[in-house]
Amino acid sequence: MRMYDIIEKKKRGYALTREEIRYAIEGYTNGNVPDYQMSALLMAIYFSKMNSEETYELTMAMMESGDLLDLSAIDGIKVDKHSTGGVGDKTTLIIGPIVAALGVPVAKMSGRGLGHTGGTIDKLESIAGFNTSVELNTFMKQVNDIKIAVAGQTAKLAPADKKIYALRDVTATVDNISLIASSIMSKKLASGADAIVLDVKCGKGAFMKDKESACELARTMVDIGKSAGKKMKAIVTDMNEPLGRWIGNSVEVYEAVKALGNIGERKLMEVCNVLASHMLIAAGIARQYDDAIIMVNDAIESGRALDKLAQLVEAQGGDGNNVRKPELLPRGRIIRKVKATRKGCIISLDAELVGKACMSLGGGRETKDGEIDLSVGIYLDKKTGETVEKDEAIATIYGSDEDKVNVAYSVLERAYTIEDNVDLYNNSNENMIIKIID
Amino acid sequence: MRMYDIIEKKKRGYALTREEIRYAIEGYTNGNVPDYQMSALLMAIYFSKMNSEETYELTMAMMESGDLLDLSAIDGIKVDKHSTGGVGDKTTLIIGPIVAALGVPVAKMSGRGLGHTGGTIDKLESIAGFNTSVELNTFMKQVNDIKIAVAGQTAKLAPADKKIYALRDVTATVDNISLIASSIMSKKLASGADAIVLDVKCGKGAFMKDKESACELARTMVDIGKSAGKKMKAIVTDMNEPLGRWIGNSVEVYEAVKALGNIGERKLMEVCNVLASHMLIAAGIARQYDDAIIMVNDAIESGRALDKLAQLVEAQGGDGNNVRKPELLPRGRIIRKVKATRKGCIISLDAELVGKACMSLGGGRETKDGEIDLSVGIYLDKKTGETVEKDEAIATIYGSDEDKVNVAYSVLERAYTIEDNVDLYNNSNENMIIKIID
Repeated sequence: MRMYDIIEKKKRGYALTREEIRYAIEGYTNGNVPDYQMSALLMAIYFSKMNSEETYELTMAMMESGDLLDLSAIDGIKVDKHSTGGVGDKTTLIIGPIVAALGVPVAKMSGRGLGHTGGTIDKLESIAGFNTSVELNTFMKQVNDIKIAVAGQTAKLAPADKKIYALRDVTATVDNISLIASSIMSKKLASGADAIVLDVKCGKGAFMKDKESACELARTMVDIGKSAGKKMKAIVTDMNEPLGRWIGNSVEVYEAVKALGNIGERKLMEVCNVLASHMLIAAGIARQYDDAIIMVNDAIESGRALDKLAQLVEAQGGDGNNVRKPELLPRGRIIRKVKATRKGCIISLDAELVGKACMSLGGGRETKDGEIDLSVGIYLDKKTGETVEKDEAIATIYGSDEDKVNVAYSVLERAYTIEDNVDLYNNSNENMIIKIID
Repeated sequence: MRMYDIIEKKKRGYALTREEIRYAIEGYTNGNVPDYQMSALLMAIYFSKMNSEETYELTMAMMESGDLLDLSAIDGIKVDKHSTGGVGDKTTLIIGPIVAALGVPVAKMSGRGLGHTGGTIDKLESIAGFNTSVELNTFMKQVNDIKIAVAGQTAKLAPADKKIYALRDVTATVDNISLIASSIMSKKLASGADAIVLDVKCGKGAFMKDKESACELARTMVDIGKSAGKKMKAIVTDMNEPLGRWIGNSVEVYEAVKALGNIGERKLMEVCNVLASHMLIAAGIARQYDDAIIMVNDAIESGRALDKLAQLVEAQGGDGNNVRKPELLPRGRIIRKVKATRKGCIISLDAELVGKACMSLGGGRETKDGEIDLSVGIYLDKKTGETVEKDEAIATIYGSDEDKVNVAYSVLERAYTIEDNVDLYNNSNENMIIKIID
């Protein structure tokens, strides 16, 4: 078998066999296939696409390139949850404690933020003392003891994906459904959960800008997971404007604590409730959606979910007082109000620009090894559909460097579109759940 | 400017600007753009194609990556001739002496053979003592003195093309009209001729298998040359079966000598006459085709063309007796007749397989640095349209190794298709000139 022939075959539009896909992936991982041949193959895949069998085989080949976690020491049906990445997405911090409080074992391997989207691990590390580097046996014991643990992904999961992703990132071959789906699913399947609930973001702040492509990605990932024998569910949710009111790291922990204290923003809670309910169903704890949603609301209202978050923080070395008194969490000391330049209705709020504003404050990383300032953040005083007076505050910046605050200010101004005519606001944005795919 | 954005733009189907093309080519040549980004761009070009402006700019960028030959010290209009590569193509050895004898200055930079197609430089080196490494000033002086010189291409012509071609060769990105045309034309334009006559081969033994793509390649190269201010003409010629009766190196010199002695095969002479006539027109020596063809025939019949070949051989250190007595040229000592397995009409003779049979004798190289045996060769006793009896000789092998002769035998057997019904032979193959493009 020759890599040249595999590239040529895909270029001509033919489906690759399981053996050809494995030859390419294994060869690239162990260094026998050079970067320049893999990038040519990736571009050929971009244009010729892959069918569902090829996409599944690609996922399996990447999954098997590294460690496969064995979580069998954890009791019960392990349910994983994954988001394709958005701005202000603190759902894991909210949902994890809710479902754990209801008895679902949550063994969560999370990533760090990159670009304009944040990562759960960074957010949790804004809590002083919180340790995300947990050894596997300790991690599993913690899940058995308190039903929840959150740790950083180990580098040994799907190393082929890691190497290929780095290449896609510099050769303009990221945006292909099969490549995206296999990249996510290879890591998820290697993480060893029994069921996976996916939150596929859709809109200006997400990788998938339109409903059709988001649904196609969701369908592709669900099919891969099912072929691999997992229980699967994907929820396509809106990411045109940021999720919730706070964007940053420590400030998103703050918002999660508030949400678990039953004062969460409606749209944020709509997403959390649906995801948590489907996790309960997948875990066999609720029979149907109506039962699940009642259980979720009860976990919040009773305070058990908030207690579970405190328990998680303490189990991993953090100070539980951050949960009981979230005002203790770090927050940028330079406070600047962004003022409306005109009177009117906010007809759009660009999530990607809000993410970039946060990144320009130092709250996100440009490259994988970049340092971030966990204390900075943005509060969105106004979101879409709301009216403002001229000079009224539309957002509040919490920064730690004057120059960076100035940059963030101008980016935030651009993120808001204010018009006289309220009819220009698209009410369909009010519904956060675009589609449920199983 | 970033290479990433250039790849992304071409991937999306947009035309690249002159500046973007130069950034990519210069960056790749000087090592600032890595292989994996260039191969992704090449694959994106394969799928999204390039328009004529982009193709021209690509050619210019590659041309300017190295030396530009200044042939102004040579008197008269310098006409170059280039073939896209075929099997048995010894036209340069025939045409060069003809037009030089008629006063056209022929300053020919030729290549070596690769794969199943041969190269003029290898063929000339089968003449004992013939030196193809000629210093530029000596080369130009020789053209002024005797109107003809043939030397190997220097490595400094279009180094960008050399590097990119090597990458295309291993990433399945060779077969794109813009990439092929710019590769050929960047070297031709750097070689400094005033006019270029192209022989674009079309058929089973050529890179372009069908008439449409051969004409498109011809048109693309003519347009590039005209944009660069050159007189241009392209002749699309048949390459379904090999050109002439002899395939190899020394044996093709033998056939060229015979052709200049006025005993050339009709189809071979048809191609030579047309190419030579258009070179005379381009050089301003003949006004129109009818005049040119008379001059060409006269140069052959008078013996002046053959004398010119002898003069060329002697000027570059070879023994002129090889031309006067071509039987002196080396020839493989193991002689084997390939016999017809049945009676019938030869309805096709696969040029590529004949080329591969010659390569398997050791007469061609698999890789750029491969050694070749200049003495081996094949004589085609029978060509398409001819009838044979069972066990009659259809080809004769001249080899130097028994095992290699056996391999060549079986390849040659496969190259011939013999059928009862003579009507299966496509008479359109009789006409060698498919199209003339200017």
